[in-house]
Amino acid sequence: MPRYKLTVEYDGAPYQGWQWQDHGPSVQGVMEAAGAKLNKGDPVLVYGSGRTDSGVHALAQVAHMDLDADMREDKLRDAMNYHMMNDPVTVLAAEKMPKDWHARFDARERRYLYRINDRRMKLALDLGRVWRIPMKLDADAMHHASQVLVGTHDFSTFRDTRCQSKSPIKTIDEINVIRAAEEIHLTFKARSFLHKQVRSIVGSLAEVGTGKWTTKDMKAALEAKDRTECGPVAPSEGLYLVSVHY
Amino acid sequence: MPRYKLTVEYDGAPYQGWQWQDHGPSVQGVMEAAGAKLNKGDPVLVYGSGRTDSGVHALAQVAHMDLDADMREDKLRDAMNYHMMNDPVTVLAAEKMPKDWHARFDARERRYLYRINDRRMKLALDLGRVWRIPMKLDADAMHHASQVLVGTHDFSTFRDTRCQSKSPIKTIDEINVIRAAEEIHLTFKARSFLHKQVRSIVGSLAEVGTGKWTTKDMKAALEAKDRTECGPVAPSEGLYLVSVHY
Repeated sequence: MPRYKLTVEYDGAPYQGWQWQDHGPSVQGVMEAAGAKLNKGDPVLVYGSGRTDSGVHALAQVAHMDLDADMREDKLRDAMNYHMMNDPVTVLAAEKMPKDWHARFDARERRYLYRINDRRMKLALDLGRVWRIPMKLDADAMHHASQVLVGTHDFSTFRDTRCQSKSPIKTIDEINVIRAAEEIHLTFKARSFLHKQVRSIVGSLAEVGTGKWTTKDMKAALEAKDRTECGPVAPSEGLYLVSVHY
Repeated sequence: MPRYKLTVEYDGAPYQGWQWQDHGPSVQGVMEAAGAKLNKGDPVLVYGSGRTDSGVHALAQVAHMDLDADMREDKLRDAMNYHMMNDPVTVLAAEKMPKDWHARFDARERRYLYRINDRRMKLALDLGRVWRIPMKLDADAMHHASQVLVGTHDFSTFRDTRCQSKSPIKTIDEINVIRAAEEIHLTFKARSFLHKQVRSIVGSLAEVGTGKWTTKDMKAALEAKDRTECGPVAPSEGLYLVSVHY
């Protein structure tokens, strides 16, 4: 029963998120249906490196699954994509792994990208791909304020009340905020993140960008360790899981 | 009756093209409906710098329209976007022009971008935005071959049989083909183009990219002045009208 690592790109818009849900389609559900077709119809479980919320995209999510039969890696990738032809979920690569390798527990680093467009006019081509904030943001101020979050902290302010992680303490290795023409790109690197941590931070940094918050306010929000001190949570459509490293 | 220049971004996918059509929605139709709402319901005509075909996108198409009332440029832009809220058509800028200014006849330069992705795996995030060719293309060979088309030529090979232009002779000022990660970007600059000229050229350059054609074949196709010597016409989804200059 070989184990395969799958690197997966998806458009989060049509899904209730990565994880199987009662009330709508999920990326995991789409992949498990495709996997079962390669397993003579027997059910297959697909484990992701972590859940992404409804509407969050992935450039390279990583997952694993076990199949009864041994398949060539490229054939497996192509067969999965064939069975997901009508879904915006694509296996970019498949790789055979040791039986005890785990997409979630062995992950050592996750990277996210958040895209903001700060133009006044509604988006025609990037609709659903970017968070539009219709007023000019100060990207340098956002970068400066973001640096108070780098390092090991109690991120209670920046996690969803339904977050299932036992501890609110996490280490963020890097945050970078840069302007790219009419977009602002925020990148995050950490071993792991809390539920809605990136979107909570982005929403708070947007307050800095508009001048409503200062770096001092960001520091105070972090130190409050109080969810009610968080800025508005940024929408899912601008968030991309960029890569998972092992 | 002031005349306004409108700079317009659109996603071509849901439209039968720029021009008003009997059999489906058009960008022009969407804009004329919005314009009429700013004109007390009286019909408004919107003239584009040129037609884009069904499925072709625009980063900055240019059009003009006359309104009965004088409106502030920024108010006009915002009002048009309000009335096109549910359409992926956005006015980026509005500018009052002299009464005899014409979006089509006064245009001196048009730029197009064509995006190809040459990966094997289907597209999840860029579906409908890029032409995927599932084999590696040689972008340098494509660039080299493209240079035989630069300058003034009879482009009979590279225009649609239904092209309404009186002459097949056009001048292409620049073509550039560069690789950008897993994409190949082809840019074109000319005073004006024939119907399907860019897509005909891109389709033929793709034959060079795969090694089926050489620069010599491209030259022979041009010199044949014969539509049947053209490579397959590239699909509309990878084509973007980038800008129009006056």
